[in-house]
Amino acid sequence: MNEFELIARLTQSLPVNDSVVVGAGDDCAVLDCGADDRQLLFKTDAVVEGIHFTKETPPEKIGRKALGRCLSDIAAMGGLPNAALVTIGLPHGYDVRFVEQLYSGMRALANEHRVAIVGGETTTSPERMFISIALTGFVPKGKAVLRAGARVGDAIFVTGELGGSRAGKHLDFEPRLAEAHWLAAHFRIHAMIDLSDGLAGDLRHILNASGVGADLGSDTIPISRAAKQTARASSSAKPALLAALTDGEDFELLFTVAAQSAVRLKDAWKEQFPKLKLTCVGKITAESGLRLRDKYGVRTFKGDGYVHFNNPSL
Amino acid sequence: MNEFELIARLTQSLPVNDSVVVGAGDDCAVLDCGADDRQLLFKTDAVVEGIHFTKETPPEKIGRKALGRCLSDIAAMGGLPNAALVTIGLPHGYDVRFVEQLYSGMRALANEHRVAIVGGETTTSPERMFISIALTGFVPKGKAVLRAGARVGDAIFVTGELGGSRAGKHLDFEPRLAEAHWLAAHFRIHAMIDLSDGLAGDLRHILNASGVGADLGSDTIPISRAAKQTARASSSAKPALLAALTDGEDFELLFTVAAQSAVRLKDAWKEQFPKLKLTCVGKITAESGLRLRDKYGVRTFKGDGYVHFNNPSL
Repeated sequence: MNEFELIARLTQSLPVNDSVVVGAGDDCAVLDCGADDRQLLFKTDAVVEGIHFTKETPPEKIGRKALGRCLSDIAAMGGLPNAALVTIGLPHGYDVRFVEQLYSGMRALANEHRVAIVGGETTTSPERMFISIALTGFVPKGKAVLRAGARVGDAIFVTGELGGSRAGKHLDFEPRLAEAHWLAAHFRIHAMIDLSDGLAGDLRHILNASGVGADLGSDTIPISRAAKQTARASSSAKPALLAALTDGEDFELLFTVAAQSAVRLKDAWKEQFPKLKLTCVGKITAESGLRLRDKYGVRTFKGDGYVHFNNPSL
Repeated sequence: MNEFELIARLTQSLPVNDSVVVGAGDDCAVLDCGADDRQLLFKTDAVVEGIHFTKETPPEKIGRKALGRCLSDIAAMGGLPNAALVTIGLPHGYDVRFVEQLYSGMRALANEHRVAIVGGETTTSPERMFISIALTGFVPKGKAVLRAGARVGDAIFVTGELGGSRAGKHLDFEPRLAEAHWLAAHFRIHAMIDLSDGLAGDLRHILNASGVGADLGSDTIPISRAAKQTARASSSAKPALLAALTDGEDFELLFTVAAQSAVRLKDAWKEQFPKLKLTCVGKITAESGLRLRDKYGVRTFKGDGYVHFNNPSL
């Protein structure tokens, strides 16, 4: 049973109450907080030594990453972050200086995005460190951008370049808060998610939630230099396109918008964020599943990145 | 450096913003959420295998305890809980059934207190399981009961009986939500905290935050049957009184109220909660420090439970 199957099982019959606008299954929960103008966003995310960082990772970057992952989820709802709580599991004989530097990286990113850190808890985790962040944010009432809103014909956009994050970006990515907030304020974004599992995996979350499929243009997918370099460096490495589709931890935005808004959005984006690439990578289809189109034909993209070729000539 | 010293260092210059009403250092953070009538409470708490539970602990009780600890903190602010997020670190080869039962214990307690569970995350924690809960709640605007409000002359009250929680109570305590909410609604509670570190340790948090001291009456402290039995069972065990003062994980309420309200409060409590003991254990003093009084004299209570005798005849 993989993580998604386990979570699906655990979240089958969770307790709810009147305050729940969106429960488990989106980037953040959305809650009524009694305000006329806004709703509460609520998210947690944990990083574990040996999984999300190593003993050799500079501590400032660990702290930055731990908070950044949650910020990216708030962005994906079109919201702005507000306050964080930090839980650290500390191994025996931990280095106080290391923990202070970790906090310092977290504080710097929090300050950048005007996030308050309103509490810290430490607990013992004998073998390895973990950091669990809980984050609240706000979104204008009724304006949270969900995964479930993609419509047939929508253009699919992605920010930045994808793949190869493990080479370094996963430790100092910029959560796309300003960009997502601007998008949600100026366009009717139908569905949005942040890229943590890779373009293919996260797009599939949107497709499943929205009950639709997608066609991606292989040649349009923006592949990062890191993914290309990794692919070139070894013949056993993933091809760069596959890396861009499946590597994960890009922390870019993936969203869909009505096709007739696509050009206007792209133009306005260039004005607003001239330094950050925005690419239309495909469109939402009535036919379910995820397909890759290139000049040679159409391939159906399945499961965890395995590519099935529909066109036997390939 | 102990946990409290580390946290004090880490929380020295945390980022804040306009929404922060109470930041790090109380049972919960208090945040402005844009509502006219209420404020948001925000808390996280983690339990770790081998520290807070063992491989042999029934999984339902692990789930119950993990959530219950956070509920107890919401109670200590005089608030009511609203929504929880659950992060579970799973060891290699974990048992799906075990995780489901853990969730089932958590769900049952959540349902009891109308708490929604609005998301679940799992991550890998190779050697041992951990569960980190993030919880939001609400409190009427400006009515959160803090640690810092104790005044000289206040009566100090404690609910239930203390000590020996490790014999079982730590796994199935009742978070005192209804009681705390009733107290805050009907009386001017000056300061409140939930007992997680033991009466002496948690009272000291109130004393430090309020800049006061306290006299406790040794004979008035309600000692649990478990603490007495443990003390009797072995000559090397803590004396029962010391257990009641220092064992921790009682998850009862400790609060202070003006002396002139004490009798009225006690009488009203008996009407309202006839089954739960409420005991006046002492009073807040201008003189700093924590003292224990009995018929033989006065002892100053220091540090982590070590008792210094001021009266050389003892």
